[in-house]
Amino acid sequence: MSTDFHQRSLSLLSEQLAEMGKSTAELISQISAFQIAVPSWALGAGGTRFGRFSIGGEPRNLEEKLEDIGLLAKLTKRTDAVSLHIPWDIPKDTQAIKEKASSLGISFDAMNSNTFQDYGQALTYKMGSLSNADAATRKQAVEHNLQVIEIGKSLGSKGLTVWLADGSNFPGQAHFRKALEWTTDSLKEIYGGMPGDWKLLLEYKPYEPNFYHTVIPDWGTSSLICRQLGDRAKVLVDLGHHLPNTNIEQIVATLMHQNLLAGFHFNDSKYGDDDLSTGSIKPYQLFLIFCELIGGAADGAQNWNSISWMIDASHNTKDPLEDLIQALEAISQAYAKALLVDREKLTHCQLSGDTVGAQAVLQEAFLTDVRALVREARIQSGGEPNPLAFYRREKIREKLIAQRGKNAQASGL
Amino acid sequence: MSTDFHQRSLSLLSEQLAEMGKSTAELISQISAFQIAVPSWALGAGGTRFGRFSIGGEPRNLEEKLEDIGLLAKLTKRTDAVSLHIPWDIPKDTQAIKEKASSLGISFDAMNSNTFQDYGQALTYKMGSLSNADAATRKQAVEHNLQVIEIGKSLGSKGLTVWLADGSNFPGQAHFRKALEWTTDSLKEIYGGMPGDWKLLLEYKPYEPNFYHTVIPDWGTSSLICRQLGDRAKVLVDLGHHLPNTNIEQIVATLMHQNLLAGFHFNDSKYGDDDLSTGSIKPYQLFLIFCELIGGAADGAQNWNSISWMIDASHNTKDPLEDLIQALEAISQAYAKALLVDREKLTHCQLSGDTVGAQAVLQEAFLTDVRALVREARIQSGGEPNPLAFYRREKIREKLIAQRGKNAQASGL
Amino acid sequence: MSTDFHQRSLSLLSEQLAEMGKSTAELISQISAFQIAVPSWALGAGGTRFGRFSIGGEPRNLEEKLEDIGLLAKLTKRTDAVSLHIPWDIPKDTQAIKEKASSLGISFDAMNSNTFQDYGQALTYKMGSLSNADAATRKQAVEHNLQVIEIGKSLGSKGLTVWLADGSNFPGQAHFRKALEWTTDSLKEIYGGMPGDWKLLLEYKPYEPNFYHTVIPDWGTSSLICRQLGDRAKVLVDLGHHLPNTNIEQIVATLMHQNLLAGFHFNDSKYGDDDLSTGSIKPYQLFLIFCELIGGAADGAQNWNSISWMIDASHNTKDPLEDLIQALEAISQAYAKALLVDREKLTHCQLSGDTVGAQAVLQEAFLTDVRALVREARIQSGGEPNPLAFYRREKIREKLIAQRGKNAQASGL
Amino acid sequence: MSTDFHQRSLSLLSEQLAEMGKSTAELISQISAFQIAVPSWALGAGGTRFGRFSIGGEPRNLEEKLEDIGLLAKLTKRTDAVSLHIPWDIPKDTQAIKEKASSLGISFDAMNSNTFQDYGQALTYKMGSLSNADAATRKQAVEHNLQVIEIGKSLGSKGLTVWLADGSNFPGQAHFRKALEWTTDSLKEIYGGMPGDWKLLLEYKPYEPNFYHTVIPDWGTSSLICRQLGDRAKVLVDLGHHLPNTNIEQIVATLMHQNLLAGFHFNDSKYGDDDLSTGSIKPYQLFLIFCELIGGAADGAQNWNSISWMIDASHNTKDPLEDLIQALEAISQAYAKALLVDREKLTHCQLSGDTVGAQAVLQEAFLTDVRALVREARIQSGGEPNPLAFYRREKIREKLIAQRGKNAQASGL
Repeated sequence: MSTDFHQRSLSLLSEQLAEMGKSTAELISQISAFQIAVPSWALGAGGTRFGRFSIGGEPRNLEEKLEDIGLLAKLTKRTDAVSLHIPWDIPKDTQAIKEKASSLGISFDAMNSNTFQDYGQALTYKMGSLSNADAATRKQAVEHNLQVIEIGKSLGSKGLTVWLADGSNFPGQAHFRKALEWTTDSLKEIYGGMPGDWKLLLEYKPYEPNFYHTVIPDWGTSSLICRQLGDRAKVLVDLGHHLPNTNIEQIVATLMHQNLLAGFHFNDSKYGDDDLSTGSIKPYQLFLIFCELIGGAADGAQNWNSISWMIDASHNTKDPLEDLIQALEAISQAYAKALLVDREKLTHCQLSGDTVGAQAVLQEAFLTDVRALVREARIQSGGEPNPLAFYRREKIREKLIAQRGKNAQASGL
Repeated sequence: MSTDFHQRSLSLLSEQLAEMGKSTAELISQISAFQIAVPSWALGAGGTRFGRFSIGGEPRNLEEKLEDIGLLAKLTKRTDAVSLHIPWDIPKDTQAIKEKASSLGISFDAMNSNTFQDYGQALTYKMGSLSNADAATRKQAVEHNLQVIEIGKSLGSKGLTVWLADGSNFPGQAHFRKALEWTTDSLKEIYGGMPGDWKLLLEYKPYEPNFYHTVIPDWGTSSLICRQLGDRAKVLVDLGHHLPNTNIEQIVATLMHQNLLAGFHFNDSKYGDDDLSTGSIKPYQLFLIFCELIGGAADGAQNWNSISWMIDASHNTKDPLEDLIQALEAISQAYAKALLVDREKLTHCQLSGDTVGAQAVLQEAFLTDVRALVREARIQSGGEPNPLAFYRREKIREKLIAQRGKNAQASGL
Repeated sequence: MSTDFHQRSLSLLSEQLAEMGKSTAELISQISAFQIAVPSWALGAGGTRFGRFSIGGEPRNLEEKLEDIGLLAKLTKRTDAVSLHIPWDIPKDTQAIKEKASSLGISFDAMNSNTFQDYGQALTYKMGSLSNADAATRKQAVEHNLQVIEIGKSLGSKGLTVWLADGSNFPGQAHFRKALEWTTDSLKEIYGGMPGDWKLLLEYKPYEPNFYHTVIPDWGTSSLICRQLGDRAKVLVDLGHHLPNTNIEQIVATLMHQNLLAGFHFNDSKYGDDDLSTGSIKPYQLFLIFCELIGGAADGAQNWNSISWMIDASHNTKDPLEDLIQALEAISQAYAKALLVDREKLTHCQLSGDTVGAQAVLQEAFLTDVRALVREARIQSGGEPNPLAFYRREKIREKLIAQRGKNAQASGL
Repeated sequence: MSTDFHQRSLSLLSEQLAEMGKSTAELISQISAFQIAVPSWALGAGGTRFGRFSIGGEPRNLEEKLEDIGLLAKLTKRTDAVSLHIPWDIPKDTQAIKEKASSLGISFDAMNSNTFQDYGQALTYKMGSLSNADAATRKQAVEHNLQVIEIGKSLGSKGLTVWLADGSNFPGQAHFRKALEWTTDSLKEIYGGMPGDWKLLLEYKPYEPNFYHTVIPDWGTSSLICRQLGDRAKVLVDLGHHLPNTNIEQIVATLMHQNLLAGFHFNDSKYGDDDLSTGSIKPYQLFLIFCELIGGAADGAQNWNSISWMIDASHNTKDPLEDLIQALEAISQAYAKALLVDREKLTHCQLSGDTVGAQAVLQEAFLTDVRALVREARIQSGGEPNPLAFYRREKIREKLIAQRGKNAQASGL
C-alpha cells in the first residue's frame, strides 16, 4: 500500500462522505478518540480444556504485560488502558507499576476479580462463591472482591468487573432462587465497598464452566440485580455469552434504553463462548451493534462516555499480539462504518415502513471501504500505517522469544 | 388395565409414598384440583406455512368448541375452562354462550387478543400493531384489546393474554428502542382499561412470525414492561418461546422470585415454537418446571393460585381431542411426580453440596410410576379411567364427522 | 451516484485490483456470466403460519410471473431463468409460454415438484409422500414427479428439484429406517424417469414442516441417497436448511470434494428457515461460501458449470421485486469479492500455519468495495446502473397494482 | 428399600410385563448381559478451561484406575472393561497389568489415541495432526496411532477409537478439502496397521477444541471416510458431539441402516459437549436412542454384538465413582425400558398412521418403573442392591483419600 494510493483512496472516500453529509476530519477525530482496553490475560496463548499450545515469548509478569500493551498502543493508537485480573496480576510494587504504565501511556481500566478458581484460598469455590450455600465462603468471595477494589484504587482504576461463574451442573444441585438471593446480597456488600466514583460492571453468561444453570445467565437477571444495587451498577455485555441466535444488538438497545449498559467484552464466536478474534466470524453483527450504540447515544438514551470497551478473546492458534492488532482494527472499522450510517434517512425509512430502504441505508455504510479512513486516523495519531506488517517486519515475536524465552508462559494462565 | 390391577398398583404405590412421608389422599386431592384451560383454537387441525391437513368434524363455531371442551372435561376431569381468541370467537349471543358453558362446567379463562393478522380492520398490522410507528395503527390495536376486555367482562373472564407478534425481519427495519417505548405506552392504555380484578398476561417470544427481531423477545423485556404497568401485569411463559438450550425452569424460578409469573402455555418442542403435545419430547424438563413451581409456592415466593395454566399446541398430524387428552395426562403426571419430591432431603443436599444426592432425589420422584395415582384422581372425580381408550371405543371422532362434516374446519383458523 | 464518480471509483478499484494481479475486464466478464434463477413462487408476498400480508399487483398467472422475471432480467442482468413449481405453475398452453419466456430472454431452470400439500389429489400426503407407509400413496407421489418431468421436458428444463417435507412430529410416529428406504426406492423410480441429460437436485432440511424428524435432514442423508441413484443425482444446499451454528461453507467444500454439489437455494436467516433476503443477515458467511465454490472449481474438485443457482426467499414485509433486486445484488457482490481473494497467498498461509495471514487474505477481499465493479458489469450488459432506484422512480409497483389489482395474489400461494 | 418391598414391586411388575408378553427372566438376562466400558480418564475429577477442582483419592496410576473400575464392576455388575488412553495409560509392565485386570474381571475395550495435545513429541499438533499440512507431522500422528495399536494388541484389545480434534479457529486457516483428504489418507495407513480382527471407531464432533471448523464434524463426514477405509471402520456416536437440537436417535438409525454404527460414548448435555452424567438432562432421548438400537438389531439392520458401549463423561462437581454408578444405572434403565416397547403394536401404529397410538406405545414403556427389574438383575449377578448407598455407607471415597492422598490427581489429566 503506497502512500500515494492511500491518499487517493482517502480523497475519493472523502468526496463520497461529503456527499453523505459527513466530514472526514470529524470522523477521523471520532475514530481516534475511540480507545479499547486490553485485558492482562490476553497477552499469552489461550487454551481449551483439551490443552494449550505455547506461543513463546509470553509476558512473564505484570511489567512485561504492560510492555506488550504499550507496544500495541504505540503501533495501533487504539488502546490506552489495561484491565487487570486479580490474583493473576497483583502488583508487587504499586508505585513502580503505576510509573511504568504511565510511561507507556497506559491507564488502568476496570479491575477483574476471580472467584471461579481455587488458588490457595481457605475455602473452595467448587460449589460456588458469591452464591455459595455456605455463608463463610460467600464472605470470603466478597472480601476477595473488596481487596480487588483496594488494589484498583491504588492504581487509579475506576471500576470493578464481576464475572460470576457460579451455577450448577445438574438439576437439583442448586436452589435457583436462593442462589440468586445470596448472589444479590453478596454483590450489595461489594457495591457498598466501592468508592463513589466507581462503576460495577456485572457480566452474564448462559453456561460454561457450569453446564446446567448459571446464576446470572442473561441480561435480564444481570439488570434485575443491578437495579437492586444502585445507579453505578450496570450490565456488561460479552459478545460470546449468549445462546444460539440471540439478537445481541437488540439487547444493547434495550440496555441503553434503561441507561443500564456498562460496556463490552469484544470477541467473536460461531458456537459458544469461543473467544475468537473480534470481527473474524460475524462482522456485520459487530457493525449492527455499533449502529445501536451510536444511535442510543445520539438519541440521548445513554451517554457514550459512560460505556466501557474491552477486548476479551483467547488466542489458541494465533500470536496474541497479532490477534489484538487484528481485533483493534476490526472494532475500529465497525465503528467507523456505523458512523457513516445516514441516520436521518434510516429514521425516515423506519417511520414510513420502508424495509427495503432501511436495509439499503445500513448496507451502504457497511459496504463502504473505510480502511483508508481508519488508517489515516492512526497515522494522524502517530501510529503505524500498517501495524501488522510492522510487527512482522520488525520480527517482534522473535525478539520477545529471544528476550523472554521459548517457553515463557504468561503469568496467571 | 383391569380394575383389580389398578387397585393393586395404587396400593403398592401408596405404601411407597407413605414411606416417603406422602399421603395418597392428599396427593389425589392436589392432582384433582389442578385444572388446565384449553384454548378455543386448539380444537381444530393446526397447520404450517406449507399447508394444513384437515381432521374432519372440527367445531364450526363457538358452541361446538365449548362442546368439545366439555367432552374433554367430562372424560379427563383435568380441564374446566376455555381461553377465547378474538376475533375468532366473538360470541353472537353472550347470554346463550354463558349458559352453554355453564351447563358444561366450563368457565372463561384469560381472553386472547389478535393484532398479528389483518381481518378487515381499517389499518394493516403488516408493520406492527402496539409498536407500529403510526400512532393511528397503535390506537386501533389498543382499542381492539379494550374491546376484547369488554367481551371478556361480559363472559366472566378475569384476564387478558397479550401475545405481541410485532417485530422486524431485517436489520434497520425497526427502531428497537422506539418500538419498545411505543409498545409499553400502548400496553399502559390497555392495562388502564382492565377492571381492577383482572390480570394482564404478557407473553414473550424470540422469533416468528418476525425473523430478525421481536419487540418482546425474552422474559427480561416482558418483565421490564410489566414493572411499568403495575402489579397485575405478569409474564406468561410459553414453553416453545425460547432460544435453543434455554433453561426454562430457571426462568420460572426467577419470575416467581419477583412474584412476576403470570402462567403457562404448555406445549413441547425440539427446534423452535413447534407446538407439539406437552410432554412428548422433553418430559424431564416438564417435571423440572413443576419442581420449581411447587418449590416457589412452598417457599412463599409466589402464590400457587396466582398462576394460570393453559395448553397451547398445534395439532398438525393428530386428532386435536386425542392430543389434548395426551397433553392433559402428561401435565398431570409431571405435576404428580413433582409433588413426590422429598423437598427436605433436596434442600439438605443443596445446602451440603451433595450434587449426586440432589440428582438422586429428583430422579427418585421422576422414575416413580404415577399413572395409578393420576388415574385414581380422575376416577374419584368422576372421569374415565382411560379417556383415550374411551374416546376411541366410542368412536367420537367418527361421530363428530358424521355430525359436522368431513370438511368442517374450526372457525377462526 | 454520478457517472463521473462511478468511473473514478472503478478506476481506483482497477488500480488496486491490478496490484492484486486481477484483471478488471476478466472480473467483469465473470460477474456478468453469473446468472441466478428466480423461482415462480418468489414473486408474490410470502407468509407465515400466522398470516400473510398482500403486497398488491402480484402476478396472477404464469404469464405475469414471467413478465416480472423479465423485468428483473432487464434491470439487473443477473437472472435469465425461472424455476417452476408444479402444480402451481402448470402451463395451459406450453407453446405460448415457451414463446413468451423466449421473448423475455428467460429459460426454464430446474422444475420443482410438490408432495407436501394436498391439492385435490386422490390420496393425502398428511402422513408423507415418497416415504409414506402406504405403497399407493408413494406411487402417486412418484407419478406426480414423473409428470413434473414431462412438463419440464416440454419447456426445455434440464433438472428436477426434489424437496421432501416428509417426516414426523412425534417419537414413534415414523419408522426411521423404513421411511429412508421407501424414500430411496421412490427416488430411484423418479431418477429412472428422467431423461439422460437431466439432473436430480435433492434438497435436505432438518425440520419444518415436521418438527421431530425429517426423512432427509442433512447433507449426509441426501448424499447417501444420491450415491444410490446415480451420477446425475446431487445434493442441493438451501442456506436456511441447517441446525444452529452449522458451518455451511464446509458442507459446500465436502460436497464438491465428492463431486456431489447440485446447487444452491439462496436466502438468509437468523433462527431457522427464515427465508430472508440473501446477504441481509450474514454477508460474510455468503462470501465464505463463494470462496469455497471458487476454490473447489479452481482445484478441479467439481466443475463450476455443473452447479445450479437459485434464489429461494419469502417476502413477508418487502415488495418481492425489490427484494429480488437486493438479493441479486448481494449475491453478485459476494461472488465478486470471493473472486478477489489472492488464492496463492491464501494457500501459502494455509500450508505454513499462518492463521493471522490467512484471515487477512480473506478480509482484504471482503473489505474491498466492489459496488463499482458489479455496477459496471451490469451497465456493460445493458442493465440499469441502479435497478432499485429505477424501479422506484418508474413507480413499477404502482403500475402493477393499477394493472393487476390491489388484491391480486400470486397464483399458487 | 426393604427386600420385601423389592420382591413385591418386582412381582407386580412381572405381572404387568407378562400382560405385555414380556418374560421377566429373559429381560433380566438381557439387562445383565449389557456391559458398558469405563474409560481410564473418567476416574479423576474433570475440569473446564477455567479450572479444575480435585476430589481427592484419585487413582495415581493405571493399577489404581483398574482397581476403581474393579470396584464399579463388583458393585454394579454393569461394567467389565476399561478403555485406555495413550499416552496417559501406557502400561509399564504389560503382563502385570493384564493379570491385575484379569483378577478384577476387567478386559480391555477399544484403545484411545491422543493427537490433540503436545506431550513432548517431536512435532507440535498445534496446527493439526492427521490433517496437518506438514507431511512429517501427519506421519508422526499416524505412527502414534500405530503404537497405540501395538499396546492394545499386547493387552488383548480389539479396537482403536480415533477422536480427531483437528480443525481450525478462523475462516481461511484451513483448506477444508485438503484437510479432509490428508485425514483420510492418514486414517488409511492406520487402518492398514490394525490386525484383521480389530475395529476402527471413528468419532465426529462439530466444534471444540476448534471453534470454526472441525475436520470430521458430523456423521456424514465420518461415514464418508469409513467407507473409504473398509468394513471394519465404523462411526462412533458421542452423545455430546452434536449441534443444538440434533435428532441423535435418527442418526443412530441411519448408521445402523448402513451397518456403520461403531458404538457409543455415553454422556448427557444441555448446551454443547458438556460431558454430564448420562441420563441426567434428557432421559427420554436416551430411551429413544435405545429404542432405535433395539429396533435396528431386531430388524437385522446391524448386529447388536457389533456395537461398542462406553461412558465418556467429565466429573467437575461429582465424585467420579458416584457419577459412574449413576450413569451405569441410568443406561441400564433406559435399555430396560426400551426392551419393554411393544414393537408389534408400534409397527402397526406406524403403518396405519396412528401417531397418537405410536406415542402412547413408547410412553407406556418409558413411564414404567423398571428399577426393581434392574435391581433384580444386579442382585442375581452378585452385585449390590443399591450400589450408591453401599459406596457411601462403606465410606469408600474417604478410604481412597486415606490411601492415595487428599491431593492425588488422576494420572494423565
